[in-house]
Amino acid sequence: MSIREIPLNRVRITDAFWSPRQRLMTDVTIPYMEKILRDEVPGAEKSHAISNFRMAAGEETGEFYGMVFQDSDVAKWLEAAAYSLALKPDKELEARVDDVVALIGRCQQSDGYLNTYFTVKEPENRWANLLECHELYCAGHMIEAGVALHEAAGKDELLHICIRLADHICDRFMQVEGIPGHQEIEIGLMRLYHATGNAKYRDMALRFLDLRGQDPQWFEKHTPKHPGVHYGGYDIIAEDTAYNQSNVPVREQTVARGHAVRQLYMLTAMADAAADTGDAELIAACDRLFDNITQKQMYVTGAVGSTPHHEAFTVDYDLPSDRCYGETCASVAMTFFAHNMLAIKPDGRYADLMELELYNAALAGMSQDGKRFFYVNPLTVDTSVSGIVPGYEHVLPQRPAWHACACCPPNLARLIASLGKYLWSEDEGTVYSHLFIGSEVETRYGRISMTSGYPWEGKAEYTIHDGGDFALTIHVPQHAVKVSLHVNGEEVSNVTADGYCRIQRNWQPDDRVTVEFDMPVRRIHAHPCVRDAAGKVALARGPLVYCVEGMDHHASLSSIVLPESAVVHTTAEEMVALHVNGIAQYASDRLYSVDSVKAMPISIRAIPYFAWGNRAPGDMQVWIREA
Amino acid sequence: MSIREIPLNRVRITDAFWSPRQRLMTDVTIPYMEKILRDEVPGAEKSHAISNFRMAAGEETGEFYGMVFQDSDVAKWLEAAAYSLALKPDKELEARVDDVVALIGRCQQSDGYLNTYFTVKEPENRWANLLECHELYCAGHMIEAGVALHEAAGKDELLHICIRLADHICDRFMQVEGIPGHQEIEIGLMRLYHATGNAKYRDMALRFLDLRGQDPQWFEKHTPKHPGVHYGGYDIIAEDTAYNQSNVPVREQTVARGHAVRQLYMLTAMADAAADTGDAELIAACDRLFDNITQKQMYVTGAVGSTPHHEAFTVDYDLPSDRCYGETCASVAMTFFAHNMLAIKPDGRYADLMELELYNAALAGMSQDGKRFFYVNPLTVDTSVSGIVPGYEHVLPQRPAWHACACCPPNLARLIASLGKYLWSEDEGTVYSHLFIGSEVETRYGRISMTSGYPWEGKAEYTIHDGGDFALTIHVPQHAVKVSLHVNGEEVSNVTADGYCRIQRNWQPDDRVTVEFDMPVRRIHAHPCVRDAAGKVALARGPLVYCVEGMDHHASLSSIVLPESAVVHTTAEEMVALHVNGIAQYASDRLYSVDSVKAMPISIRAIPYFAWGNRAPGDMQVWIREA
Repeated sequence: MSIREIPLNRVRITDAFWSPRQRLMTDVTIPYMEKILRDEVPGAEKSHAISNFRMAAGEETGEFYGMVFQDSDVAKWLEAAAYSLALKPDKELEARVDDVVALIGRCQQSDGYLNTYFTVKEPENRWANLLECHELYCAGHMIEAGVALHEAAGKDELLHICIRLADHICDRFMQVEGIPGHQEIEIGLMRLYHATGNAKYRDMALRFLDLRGQDPQWFEKHTPKHPGVHYGGYDIIAEDTAYNQSNVPVREQTVARGHAVRQLYMLTAMADAAADTGDAELIAACDRLFDNITQKQMYVTGAVGSTPHHEAFTVDYDLPSDRCYGETCASVAMTFFAHNMLAIKPDGRYADLMELELYNAALAGMSQDGKRFFYVNPLTVDTSVSGIVPGYEHVLPQRPAWHACACCPPNLARLIASLGKYLWSEDEGTVYSHLFIGSEVETRYGRISMTSGYPWEGKAEYTIHDGGDFALTIHVPQHAVKVSLHVNGEEVSNVTADGYCRIQRNWQPDDRVTVEFDMPVRRIHAHPCVRDAAGKVALARGPLVYCVEGMDHHASLSSIVLPESAVVHTTAEEMVALHVNGIAQYASDRLYSVDSVKAMPISIRAIPYFAWGNRAPGDMQVWIREA
Repeated sequence: MSIREIPLNRVRITDAFWSPRQRLMTDVTIPYMEKILRDEVPGAEKSHAISNFRMAAGEETGEFYGMVFQDSDVAKWLEAAAYSLALKPDKELEARVDDVVALIGRCQQSDGYLNTYFTVKEPENRWANLLECHELYCAGHMIEAGVALHEAAGKDELLHICIRLADHICDRFMQVEGIPGHQEIEIGLMRLYHATGNAKYRDMALRFLDLRGQDPQWFEKHTPKHPGVHYGGYDIIAEDTAYNQSNVPVREQTVARGHAVRQLYMLTAMADAAADTGDAELIAACDRLFDNITQKQMYVTGAVGSTPHHEAFTVDYDLPSDRCYGETCASVAMTFFAHNMLAIKPDGRYADLMELELYNAALAGMSQDGKRFFYVNPLTVDTSVSGIVPGYEHVLPQRPAWHACACCPPNLARLIASLGKYLWSEDEGTVYSHLFIGSEVETRYGRISMTSGYPWEGKAEYTIHDGGDFALTIHVPQHAVKVSLHVNGEEVSNVTADGYCRIQRNWQPDDRVTVEFDMPVRRIHAHPCVRDAAGKVALARGPLVYCVEGMDHHASLSSIVLPESAVVHTTAEEMVALHVNGIAQYASDRLYSVDSVKAMPISIRAIPYFAWGNRAPGDMQVWIREA
């Protein structure tokens, strides 16, 4: 039996760093999302998502509007709202959620089918085009919302709707072959299985997973070519079978390719199923892809997806820092994947990856005020080309206003609002702490609370409130130096295996465990095959990767050099910044010259990557030349 | 009165480096081009260009085939064939040229109009769509061919056809407004003016130039939107007015933008017209754009066009080395432009640019055997991404076979075959030598010959065979060091102005002038705003920029570092190669590590850039990290 997360309703986050960010979600982002869905924000792009449901229920007339997957916006909001209700009871929000859920119920067909596009526009073409039509994708998100409302808010109406929907899907797709064009239903079905215990949902998820890639031409053969059931303009996908990972059976895949979010949603479900079934082949496939992604195709910030073309992985070691896609959703999905890998085994690499994504690539997707969001998370921004020159159109020096987007903001909202479930897990005899995020948790051994100075200080204190005979097993990040553990003030030996310290005791009420470690500034170097990082260094401290911003320097960022011997100082400002004496190099004002390179001293200031772009738009760089 | 080139028929190249390359053109490339046009190469892409003319003459039935500008392939071949006849008399070739010219004559309409596409397919739509239809472009190339046959081969039939064509164009476009969608007619008209002395062709060229950009919406207003006269799929161009430089009046342009070949053909004609008229405003515009291109937007090899998207210039200092377009045609056009600037004033920067293009970016377009050609000339080739990863599809590690292309090979063929006309010019009292390419020339002061060890040695010897009272004015490249000049063995003072040494004498028969200079290996650094070259060095010697190839190194090219203090040695192999002790840096096999950087010694071997990619396909890099 694998270890399982301690669910959201048993965890309360009390963290100086994350609690304010959760409040941004409950107080700003999630209410704003709802207004968008209801078309109540003047000047914002039309959503029409709630209206689509009204039309499907026969309660409004007009035309369906939006993407064929417009329903998923409502589902993602409902999921985020569920977590919001868990964080902060709100009768009015609850009533509005109930309203929307009841509306969804009225849209559901008698056979369980639920999708407003096909109900309103093309009832005769249900399930006809799995490649492009996202019916299973929307269903997956709706099921996630149903499970979330059940687990986080104790509300079951949507769960029942989703059970009917899932039963309908099982009835159909256990009979006929079908592969989802965009992976997501697999995640939903696994979550529904965990919530209900009904194994047929897991089996359906496994069938969807295992059919993929058996016949690389499956989508080409099964996608209608005539207009009317041809939606997304994704003709190319029928040829580029790696785009949705249908080129190779999932158990045989060795490298991440194609659309990054599709790949990672698939891996999220695979890891979940593998943890549940213990299927060695599936576990091995997850491990291979985890290694490939993290050791060959991931930016130092945790971002993935090297090209905006199809928002995709490319090839090993191709990590251009200035033109990457690094979609926020992909970093959110990396967190999902890593979290589910932890249910297979408590390996510190998975917790390290969650930490990397949460504090860096994922968090950078959001402005400090919670109102603006990046889709794309580059490691170099040069304002002379970003957003202007072909190949850089997608790279923005400033987060766009929220309402221009549809996928990344709600994905980040549901991640941050549900952060509690990523912190702790347990099995018989063990409680695992994965992240140093201050919180209180109800374990099977009673209440444990933890406080932490993270991400600024390498220090955490656990209080066991009830006690019991179990191992408190604490993840110590891979970057920690001089780790010391104390139980009630007495040092204990630092037994680590796979990145976790395991302290087995018969714990007494009010026992305290402290973990302390140094977080020196790290100079990170990349593999020599990463062309764009050759000869460069990235600065990091603790969980945070740092970057330099143009506005802090009187030289073009590309001219800045950090001597190998220079000592980097930390200064506690609003957040810990790094300061170091560097040099700015230049040869001449001419385009090319044989002048020798001159150097002038420059004070380099680096700030956490997640915080970049929160002042004025400007240049930014993670990798700094090293001499 | 400006200085004028000494035309081709008065110059004979006798150069160890270039003569074999001219023979490749006459013996391999130009005959092959003709076979392509006649569809006589099995397996090659269908051209149909000669058949199109047969159909327009009513001598063959069938469908027009090819691009709307297919005629220009025939014109460019005729121009190259003209130069070939000047280099190497060939009765058979001459007869075939005569045949084609006669065929062209039979296609010409009674009013002078000449274009097979419109004659065969849409006679009612002549001149209806100047943006897309390339009628003026094809006419320009045909006129260049007519002038070339007249000047280089003493054959006038095509010239007469072209005069009728040009008269037709003047009759029409002196009356109604028209702007060529792809600049080229301006060059042809200027050449026709020089050949005939008829100023109306120059005035027509000036009118075409000066109408451009007066109304940035001109093309949008004057391009038919209905199918049938909408050809190229260039809808975007009507919006992106910088694409064909119609965004700003040409005299007001300050930066090169848009399609590089269009920009440079325009500048070639502008410089020609400016030299002829002495128009200060036009000269200033040419100077500004020359400076902008060479000081802000040119690769160190001479390549221009930073993006494959519309084969275009982008913004100042945007010079990515791995994804540039650097079209061979653009480097050929840079040579045209620089050559015409020399007619305005003998400034060494123009001759330096011709030298840079001829020995580097342009020449690299061709394989050593003259059979394979690059369109795209990158400065970094990483075979793990080149030709594979989105954004790198156009970057090839190997020259494609000739017949896959249509524009670059004939452009290079006509440049190399007509190289003689770039070497010398003269005016009253002065003979100018621009390039150290061994040759004999008939000047107004009689015969002069020159031998040179270029590009391997900094040495040239001039022999004045007839004598006379004039200044021999020799361009000494900007890179030359310790220049010494001797006349009949006696040192003369090295008087240089604007990059030329001027020796005024009453020359006697058999007077000899020698120029000697050192060509130490140069370490070139780029402006700090060129992100991709920051911290890197390019090696050059004499006119040649060097590169490293993967197959000569046991380390990934991006890991190689050249210490600032390392002494670079030259070794005379088949060509002069550079050798230097460098280091290969690596930190770890992991993707990211905090290991300090290790270094192992490595022997770096660099070869001339023009010669890269002539062994097996592999990695290549011009910029090398410097420490």
